[in-house]
This record gives sequence, structure tokens and C-alpha cells, in this order.
Amino acid sequence: MITLTLLGSGGGMPMPQRFLSSLIMNYQGRKILVDCGEGTQVAMRKVNTGFKSIDIICITHIHGDHLFGLPGLLTTMGNSDRQLPVTIIGCKGISKMLKGLISAISYLPFELIIIENPRIPLKIICSSNGLQIKEYGKAQSHEMIISTLELDHSSPCLGYGFEVIRKPKFSLEKTLHYGVPKEIWARLQNGETVLYNDINYEPNMVLGEKRKGIKISFITDTRPIKEISAFIQESDLFICEGTYGDDKDIEKAIKNKHMTFQEAAQLAKDGEVKELLLTHFSTAMDQPEDYKLNAQATFNNTIIGVDGLAKTISY
Amino acid sequence: MITLTLLGSGGGMPMPQRFLSSLIMNYQGRKILVDCGEGTQVAMRKVNTGFKSIDIICITHIHGDHLFGLPGLLTTMGNSDRQLPVTIIGCKGISKMLKGLISAISYLPFELIIIENPRIPLKIICSSNGLQIKEYGKAQSHEMIISTLELDHSSPCLGYGFEVIRKPKFSLEKTLHYGVPKEIWARLQNGETVLYNDINYEPNMVLGEKRKGIKISFITDTRPIKEISAFIQESDLFICEGTYGDDKDIEKAIKNKHMTFQEAAQLAKDGEVKELLLTHFSTAMDQPEDYKLNAQATFNNTIIGVDGLAKTISY
Repeated sequence: MITLTLLGSGGGMPMPQRFLSSLIMNYQGRKILVDCGEGTQVAMRKVNTGFKSIDIICITHIHGDHLFGLPGLLTTMGNSDRQLPVTIIGCKGISKMLKGLISAISYLPFELIIIENPRIPLKIICSSNGLQIKEYGKAQSHEMIISTLELDHSSPCLGYGFEVIRKPKFSLEKTLHYGVPKEIWARLQNGETVLYNDINYEPNMVLGEKRKGIKISFITDTRPIKEISAFIQESDLFICEGTYGDDKDIEKAIKNKHMTFQEAAQLAKDGEVKELLLTHFSTAMDQPEDYKLNAQATFNNTIIGVDGLAKTISY
Repeated sequence: MITLTLLGSGGGMPMPQRFLSSLIMNYQGRKILVDCGEGTQVAMRKVNTGFKSIDIICITHIHGDHLFGLPGLLTTMGNSDRQLPVTIIGCKGISKMLKGLISAISYLPFELIIIENPRIPLKIICSSNGLQIKEYGKAQSHEMIISTLELDHSSPCLGYGFEVIRKPKFSLEKTLHYGVPKEIWARLQNGETVLYNDINYEPNMVLGEKRKGIKISFITDTRPIKEISAFIQESDLFICEGTYGDDKDIEKAIKNKHMTFQEAAQLAKDGEVKELLLTHFSTAMDQPEDYKLNAQATFNNTIIGVDGLAKTISY
């Protein structure tokens, strides 16, 4: 199960009635934040997410409306007695950008691990030290995969995919068939390969069929490039920018490298996702709900984001 | 005349119900901002101050709650077609701190002039290019003086004084007495010394008695050091931190280098100011108004700050 809250649904500039686009996900009591514009920590206070258990922060790109909230949030996390390292994942250029922003923080009691433009999916485990990027070659199985996709915006920008892996059930039938000793069932179930009495045992000797996990995709800011539909394929929830509600704003969308509601809906349709959640609304659009039909005409299961909107996605 | 708005009245961390301590002053259509914590630009939108005409930004000290809103505000000012230079005045260390924060802004269409810990009062003129620090030796008279005072906080911190100079009235009696030629009356009235037909004329040959201007003082964050009462002497408005309302919090105030309401009121009394406006309330203090009497017992003319509180101070 994963619960998530859209902290803000605005793009460009923070407004009194709308926080900047940001999302927080809760998995097993630990948290992943996606984007952190100015005011994100206030939006978090409004919905009482807490600050201490944020282990991973994913930044889409280095435009201020997506990361100027970081110095304040990291300071507040430090004041909340956070001591475990925090991992920040971001696009090309994020390390240099963060170096400047973070130099403005007088004291941080935790380490920052920065991963710039990861070109391979990151495997995540949930340990007593929170969500951590798995070291390659370790036997322990991962519980989540964070994938990235290079988008088409006016600066380097990443889309994010979050896939929670659901373990297959234990299969007593297969276990007995392979004659697996009882002493190592639990380790195999946990994804380890085990050498026992000179025999090599693999996890699939005790595990049944694969089970569908949870897939959440987050795409902002970009034009609707064709790679997106494969990347978001069959997501349970597709959170996508819809900077412009009106189809007539297509020229602005092209010029500013954003999308209309209709374009986001077309991606949702092509990607065969279950549900589309639109966000990152232009400051000029007072009532995004007024344009809902422009998306629903193409993809019916569309929600218009509002600050504080919460969802629970179960297996 | 000067109008001012308390943009936020909170200290420490931004809260949903209270912006961080910040003040904006309007003089002849141009603006001076004092402190800029995260969310200041949102507070400005709430009261419709506009962004383009901010000429001077005074930062008290380099703790995040007083300047993490700068990257966002400066970006928004750039997006508002600001092209004139902006002057940032701050305490020791401000240049290095700003270098980091500002490196995170992708593009600024205006120059930033940084003045670190000015040890002499800055003379300000209001020209067609906005409020500018006067170059020394120029004849034109100044209209405002910005003074600073080194305070006693956990990091270098400056208090600010803003004094609007009120020109003396034109004195026909003196002008005729000194036989000043009519051709140069206006220039002398404007503060220039003029050499005319080989005779040196001074402004005081056409000007009457001095007239009281407007004095506004801004003191946060600090312990109540004795230098403050002389610095704020006879202010029309004394804006002062009152981090703790309860007298019993004196130990916290001493430890964290802040003040109680009572201590701020004592400064107001010693400084013989006209009015005290308390701000920078601890996040733990829900209803600062509850502690108003703790200040008023010492200094009756005390206002408890609330976000958006506006005042006009006339000559």
C-alpha cells in the first residue's frame, strides 16, 4: 500500500491560494518527496506529514518553482532531529545548483547524498534506516524501483516512475518439489540466493507466480514526447502536468514546453494508465476544474488536482 | 508620508497561519523590503504590493527564516520585468551567503548591488531610477537615511533605522535677506550649493527651520542591548521582535538570544518611541495577543503584529 498527498498544484509562482506542484508519498511509514518549490514545508504542515521521515527527495528540474523550498525544508528537517542521510535525486546540473542553495544553510545534522541524472533504475530497500538505494550485488531483494525519463523542457528535466514490488506468495508445492531445507526458506523468500550444504538454492524455488505491485508516474514539466507513454505504461496513478486547461493555449504550451489538459489525457490513454491526476496549473488559470472535460473527452478517469488531495493505492 | 505593511509576524519556521517576519515600506511609490523568509513573495501577493518597484532589500541576518525567500522573490521580480539594479544590505557574511543562494537562479535581468555591514549611515535619494544610495560628494540632498546597528544574536545581526528627511520650508524672508537671485532658488531649495556670478550660495540661505521627518526602527533578532534605546530614540514606529510573550520565558530568551514582550516594551520606553509594533513570534505562541498586557504594563502604546497589518505614517 502507498498513500500520497498532492501538496501543491501550481506552476510558475507560488500563490496565496495554491502551493507549487509537489507530491509526498508514504510507504511503510517512510517518505518520498517529489519536487520542493518555495512553501512546500508549509504545505506539509497543513496536512501534517511530518518532516523527519523523508528519506528521498526527487527533483524534476532546476527551475525555482520546483526546488527553492529545499533550503527551508532541509533546515526544518534538521530541526526535527533528522540524523539519517537524505538522498536527493535530480536532473543534470542538480549537484551544482544544490551546492549553492545548501551553502546557505548554516548547519545540517545529516548527510546529503546527491544522485545526478541516474541512467539506470534505482532499487530501493526499506530498512531500519529508512528507504535506501540498494547497493548493487547485495543479495537482499528490493521493494521499490525509482526510474527516470529525460523529458523535453526548456532545461534538463526528469520524469519519475515509482514501482512498489509485490513479493510472490510462498509456494509450499514448489518448495517441496525442489526439496528446499526448512532452515533457509525465510532467506529465499526474502530474495536471497543461498548456498547450503554445497547446493545452490534460488528464491524462485520457494516463490509462486509474480504479483502486480503498484506503479505511480510523475511527469512535469515537458512537452508530450512519445517516450512518455511507454514509461508510464499501466500506471495505477499518472500524475501529470496540465499547465493549460484550454485547448486554445496549445501554442503557449509548445512555446513554453508544457502541455494542455488534452495532451496529458492523450498520454494517459496511450499509456493505458488507470487514473490521471492533473497538476502544475498556470497562475493564469483560476479554476482548472472548468477545463476538466477537455481532458475527460480523451481520458475519462481524470482528476483535477487540488492542494492537499490525498489518495491511497493498494495492491 | 510612508506606508508600511507587516508581511509576516512569525519567527523560526513558516506556518500555515503565519508568514515569517518581514516588512515592506512604500515611499513615493518605491519600496524597501526588510527581511525575506520563505513565503515572503506569497505574503506580498496577498496584500498586492507588486514586485517591480522594490529598490532596496535589508536583511537582518543570515538565518534561513530571514532570507530563504530571496531566490524566489528575485526570480519573480525578474519575471515582473524589473531591470533597474536592486540593492541588498546585510550583516557580515551576507555576500558569501547570497552568492550561494543566487547561484541557484538561472537568469536575473537586473544587477544586484550588495552592501555588507555598512558602518556609516547610507544616504538615499529617490530618482527616476528608484531609491538609490547616494554617491558621496554629490550635491543633491538626500531624502532618507538608512542606519544600522550591530545587535546581539547567535550570528551577526543588524538592526535598521529608516529616517525620512523632511525638507525645511522655503523662507522668502531669508532669501531676500541674503539677496539670492531668483534663478537659483529652486536649486538651493533642492539642497545644492550654487556658485552664481562668482558668489557662493548655500541652501540654508533660502530654507527655514528644520522640520521633524519620519523615523522607523526595525530590531530583530537580538537580546535587548543598551545601544538599542539610543538607536531607536524618538522613532514614530518601533518594530521589534517579541519572540516570547510570557515573562516566564526569559531564560529561553536569554539562551536563544531573543526577547520577551516585556523586554521589547522596556526598549520602547527607554527609546521614547511613539508606538511599538511587536513581531517575530515563536511558533509555540499561538495567540500573541494573549500576552499584550505584558508589554503594555511597561509601554502602553503597543500593537501586537498580525500578518498584513498596514500603517501610514505622516509628517
